[in-house]
Amino acid sequence: MSAQLADALRAQIATMEPDSQLPTEADLVARYGVSRTTVRRALGDLVDEGLLVRRQGAGTFVAHRRIVHPLDRLRPFVSIFAGSGEQPEGRLLRYEWVDEPVLPSAQSPVSGALLVRRLYMIDDEPQVVADIAVPDPFGQRVSRAEIEQHPVYQVLREQLGLTPAYGRITLSSQAASDDLAPALGLPEGHPLLVLRRTTLDSGDRLLEHATYYLRPDRFELQLTVDAAGMEKVAYDFGEPGAALVLVPPA
Amino acid sequence: MSAQLADALRAQIATMEPDSQLPTEADLVARYGVSRTTVRRALGDLVDEGLLVRRQGAGTFVAHRRIVHPLDRLRPFVSIFAGSGEQPEGRLLRYEWVDEPVLPSAQSPVSGALLVRRLYMIDDEPQVVADIAVPDPFGQRVSRAEIEQHPVYQVLREQLGLTPAYGRITLSSQAASDDLAPALGLPEGHPLLVLRRTTLDSGDRLLEHATYYLRPDRFELQLTVDAAGMEKVAYDFGEPGAALVLVPPA
Repeated sequence: MSAQLADALRAQIATMEPDSQLPTEADLVARYGVSRTTVRRALGDLVDEGLLVRRQGAGTFVAHRRIVHPLDRLRPFVSIFAGSGEQPEGRLLRYEWVDEPVLPSAQSPVSGALLVRRLYMIDDEPQVVADIAVPDPFGQRVSRAEIEQHPVYQVLREQLGLTPAYGRITLSSQAASDDLAPALGLPEGHPLLVLRRTTLDSGDRLLEHATYYLRPDRFELQLTVDAAGMEKVAYDFGEPGAALVLVPPA
Repeated sequence: MSAQLADALRAQIATMEPDSQLPTEADLVARYGVSRTTVRRALGDLVDEGLLVRRQGAGTFVAHRRIVHPLDRLRPFVSIFAGSGEQPEGRLLRYEWVDEPVLPSAQSPVSGALLVRRLYMIDDEPQVVADIAVPDPFGQRVSRAEIEQHPVYQVLREQLGLTPAYGRITLSSQAASDDLAPALGLPEGHPLLVLRRTTLDSGDRLLEHATYYLRPDRFELQLTVDAAGMEKVAYDFGEPGAALVLVPPA
């Protein structure tokens, strides 16, 4: 029952403006003919999803829309804010050279890297922490002033004459650690959406590796994928030891 | 310091087998010449990332590899397990017809839908909860036995003669709610990686909408994106009110 109510409310919320107030629990009980427990559970699910926010003593409100960022091609990360019309502030939290490999062992071996941590803010509210590693030999040529002022792709291009050709992106989720949580204004353990990106040039040289820790109430990532070439699946969940068969189209 | 140690340990872990034990904190203090606080913090970060697991009284161990799933094209979800060599068990937790719209209002209006919840297990360990909605008029033609036994794409194709053409995928993260957490064997509030998928056919008919709640210690999603057509970025983080300029290539 609560899942159905959540579905109905989700459709309604989609038509409402951010910061508008939801009817009270009692109103929802009356309107949908369900129990108070059902209403509470549905509202709780929508708060968990980040569609609603509770404000102490004031009620339940429609949350600000998440920024939806397309993953269809490689983009400068800062373009995530372009669609929202927001101009992010970037605050450098770290600028450090390390003399050890900091990149996954599968990558080309590097002897050291420049490590940069940048905090993205909108209206003084933290949005994203980015840990950027620019490996040897490129990182040595990036000054603090350049990376403090400009996005890493701009620095790679304009200062170092490097052209990103493609990126490998990995998406995951993790709990905010005790150094990320305060930077992002979240309680420790709060879910984070994590985007790891490795950027290479057309000669497969590793240009940078970045990890973006995104507030999940602010961002979601989107892509459209084609079914062309989709395997046909044949599988039987009910049969113990069933083989998972995926047949590519002829 | 702890970030550097975490980087060094990350490289080392990449060469180790799952379930192998890490040196003790004291060993790491001695080996890396850092403080115990630094060691604890670095290990804590790697536990948060899901690379390490702590076992009470036994020590710290290399976690099982996450299943890495490519997002390059539309695939039957169950194919996420194909690369791992695992044969997932699927357990139907819900099979219900609802007479209300359950899909985002932007979609074609539907008057009702079949709602299915499936729990994916490997060796009796929960991995993923999937909430699948098959809208009117297609959902009415899906029997409980069919969807209990087979992946939804197989049912759409074989039973209903429908061919997925493309999918819209959204990735986000949220805290495990009080109904998802026990199903997934996680504490309430634990981060989940969430994949929402809307599948359409070549006539833009909505075939299904599914939400997959993935254990973040078990899964990550991957794609390779091309820089062709990437905008050049010009932005100055240091300048208040700076405009974010993105110039597509000529």
